[in-house]
Amino acid sequence: MEEKLADIRKGFSDFLERENALRTALTLFDWDNETLAPEAASERTAKAYGILSAAYQELFAQDGLEKIFEEMRAAKDSSPLERALARRAEKERRKLLSIPKEEYRRFSELTAGSVQKWSLAKKQDDFASFAPVLEEILDMQRRFASYRAEEGQVPYDVFLSDYEEGFTQEKLDAFFEELKQGILPLVKEVVQRNKERPVSCEFLFQSFDTEKQRHWNKWLAAYLGFRFSRGVLAESEHPFTTSLHRDDVRITTHYYKNNLESAIFSTIHEAGHGIFEQGNDGEVTQTLLAGGTCGVHESQSRFYENMLGRSRAFWEPIYGRLQKTFPEQLEKISLDAFLKAINRSQPGLVRTESDELTYCLHIIVRYELEKRLVGGELSVRDLEKEWKRLYEEYLGVIPKTAAEGVLQDVHWAMGEFGYFPSYALGNAMAAQLYVHMNREIDLEKLLLAGDLDRISGYLREHIHRYGASKGMEELLCEVTGESLDPKYYLEYLKKKYA
Amino acid sequence: MEEKLADIRKGFSDFLERENALRTALTLFDWDNETLAPEAASERTAKAYGILSAAYQELFAQDGLEKIFEEMRAAKDSSPLERALARRAEKERRKLLSIPKEEYRRFSELTAGSVQKWSLAKKQDDFASFAPVLEEILDMQRRFASYRAEEGQVPYDVFLSDYEEGFTQEKLDAFFEELKQGILPLVKEVVQRNKERPVSCEFLFQSFDTEKQRHWNKWLAAYLGFRFSRGVLAESEHPFTTSLHRDDVRITTHYYKNNLESAIFSTIHEAGHGIFEQGNDGEVTQTLLAGGTCGVHESQSRFYENMLGRSRAFWEPIYGRLQKTFPEQLEKISLDAFLKAINRSQPGLVRTESDELTYCLHIIVRYELEKRLVGGELSVRDLEKEWKRLYEEYLGVIPKTAAEGVLQDVHWAMGEFGYFPSYALGNAMAAQLYVHMNREIDLEKLLLAGDLDRISGYLREHIHRYGASKGMEELLCEVTGESLDPKYYLEYLKKKYA
Repeated sequence: MEEKLADIRKGFSDFLERENALRTALTLFDWDNETLAPEAASERTAKAYGILSAAYQELFAQDGLEKIFEEMRAAKDSSPLERALARRAEKERRKLLSIPKEEYRRFSELTAGSVQKWSLAKKQDDFASFAPVLEEILDMQRRFASYRAEEGQVPYDVFLSDYEEGFTQEKLDAFFEELKQGILPLVKEVVQRNKERPVSCEFLFQSFDTEKQRHWNKWLAAYLGFRFSRGVLAESEHPFTTSLHRDDVRITTHYYKNNLESAIFSTIHEAGHGIFEQGNDGEVTQTLLAGGTCGVHESQSRFYENMLGRSRAFWEPIYGRLQKTFPEQLEKISLDAFLKAINRSQPGLVRTESDELTYCLHIIVRYELEKRLVGGELSVRDLEKEWKRLYEEYLGVIPKTAAEGVLQDVHWAMGEFGYFPSYALGNAMAAQLYVHMNREIDLEKLLLAGDLDRISGYLREHIHRYGASKGMEELLCEVTGESLDPKYYLEYLKKKYA
Repeated sequence: MEEKLADIRKGFSDFLERENALRTALTLFDWDNETLAPEAASERTAKAYGILSAAYQELFAQDGLEKIFEEMRAAKDSSPLERALARRAEKERRKLLSIPKEEYRRFSELTAGSVQKWSLAKKQDDFASFAPVLEEILDMQRRFASYRAEEGQVPYDVFLSDYEEGFTQEKLDAFFEELKQGILPLVKEVVQRNKERPVSCEFLFQSFDTEKQRHWNKWLAAYLGFRFSRGVLAESEHPFTTSLHRDDVRITTHYYKNNLESAIFSTIHEAGHGIFEQGNDGEVTQTLLAGGTCGVHESQSRFYENMLGRSRAFWEPIYGRLQKTFPEQLEKISLDAFLKAINRSQPGLVRTESDELTYCLHIIVRYELEKRLVGGELSVRDLEKEWKRLYEEYLGVIPKTAAEGVLQDVHWAMGEFGYFPSYALGNAMAAQLYVHMNREIDLEKLLLAGDLDRISGYLREHIHRYGASKGMEELLCEVTGESLDPKYYLEYLKKKYA
């Protein structure tokens, strides 16, 4: 019996090692594809990527794995982490094995090449050229959802639970309804106020040398607590974070010559993700529970970006440094004026450039659309039209181009339906966390002292170290003593914008 | 029977697909490791790399492969390429299976981390800290050679034949002896002449803005014929070329603020490699016969770097452009003065910065050292001392630091013993090719007209398209009608430097 258990444990750890090695390789291909690979590479690279993905699926199809996972969960001397890993591995096994081999490989090849196709279509502002790719991705994902759906799940639920366990379309309908009711009247107020007293922000859109922006943002990421000995800051069309493990975390940003704000807040946002990944405990990194669940991840990036990154206390010690980097452009701009500008609200077309108040409306548009896409109630053919209609309804603006409309985000091109809600959940969690943290540590004081390490230390201790071994609800209950409640977020917005 | 052959063919193509996918992943890790990965990443990444390498070895250990390769070579309807691939696969199979699993994985992990350790030791100018790593690599490689050596092979032959089939220590002893006898007297002459009439070259070592160098070198690579839609130019400590396939070829260079020449000739050299890889036929890329054999590869890079890149005809149409990029530094420097400077010879310490005449002496030092290391006649402990002794003997200079001495090259840190001779073989092949090509196409005229495409077209047609399916001797015989003969190279050097 002892011996048998030793075999089981050996089988489990062999499996985990291989799983991690293959996944790390796939992650590296994804990273490379989005940051560096040349234009013409994707077709041939996708072939190799497809084969590695198939090997990943095969790995889970090995005989005896189900039994190994089961025994690891049952064994008395398994650690809580081992149990959680076995649970997670079993979930992944079911997911992967529900999909026929050929379809899985086809899908992997498809999504390995689709990001470049999306990027090209966005550059050429041409949704029609990308629509057939998106259609194939959606068809396959819908089919996969039908293979995977458990009793009582609508297809969209399948994806939602991939990103943040426990959330369903039903729950999210209520969550978004509450947000919508809270936010829409505030937006009206803001739009009216803007008309009466427009906020000056043109100074953010002068010409800013890209090389200087690069230096500044690198400094900023380090200031926030992102460790360059264990990480990289690169550039990509769509800023994102990925990691091979806690000692190799990669974030990207995007520099625009005529926009100082864009790179700064992308950098802060992605640094928030990156600090999370770097804060994983040694025993969760390089496992299926590395990183963090999507909603919790977004709570950290939004916490850094908004709660910290748009506050006076954050900028007070460092604004002078920004002025010195761009004296011509900022010398005469006071900290007050700068803060007003970066905290302005104005309904716009682009999610990643949007302010805190309107941000969730961008998510609601996507939520409503993808819910219908996945549910089969909306076709890709009608997507652009519907996108425009909802932007007009919720934000009062209509995109003139696909690039600033339906093609602006990479997610659907990667097959990620059901991810967008994570951003809104993350916003809500961040606000709830903020209220709680302020009771325990004086955030303002720490920010004024430039002691960001103390803040990331708190987050590491209570959140980051666990990786994805704890989900949003579990963490919130442990840290704040409550379930997720959007009231904190709405109160925060009201206080700021009413 | 028919059916059986169809199975064999299917098995062969499945194997090739998987082989290529795994090797592509390993290549991407290597690339990433040398160009981007953060300092602290290597330990954890090496673990994943070791597991993927082990999976690569396992792939070759599958039952029935030997038979598949044999039948593919024997089958009447196999194409010549299929036969060559089956031969190559069988060679690789024998190599991999001769090494015990655990040792192979250990070696892969070791070399995945050793480049970073080498890089650090070089930065800190500290050979002692790197010596134990090198010792372990050498020990393992010597053991592997003993597993693999066939009748009549000395251990060093095993590695030589990995890089360029058909070459042995015996052959190379003769080859290098001939080079040495030809080159040493020329170097003496040059050193004497330098004393009497020193060549002015200080203008190459003024301050040159790195960003401008970047732009210029990118333009230069494209001018040479490197296609950026299917390739990337990046930066690394030690310039190199790698590729995922013909549509994703990656070259690097290295910019020094106070040295204009270094990046230019690194770029030309690596572009030569890159154009080779991009010129592979569609049917050889993504197979075990992609790329090219090492000696042939170096012949192409050296052909571009020296035969073309140091000629008057090459610079005549583009020197003005370089002057315009750096007017302050080069406005008053005539093309004549520039050409004299980039063609000067002066024994120095660093191989990659050395001139055409002394270059092979750098190789001979390494050849003599690694031959003795692999043969067990020299220990890593005595390596630095011996390095200095040979540099003094052949080049009349003694390195003061390990960084410009024994630590200057990455090869041994990667476990590559036996690669260095490829550079000298490549030089000799390049010179032989040059004489022959000039009979068929007027290189000078084409260079003056800036028609580099015609030149790369010729090379693609006669060399690049075949990838590694033809080795140096086969290609030389086909293209020039003769075996490799160092006399062309020595004549070229005499004409230039006597």
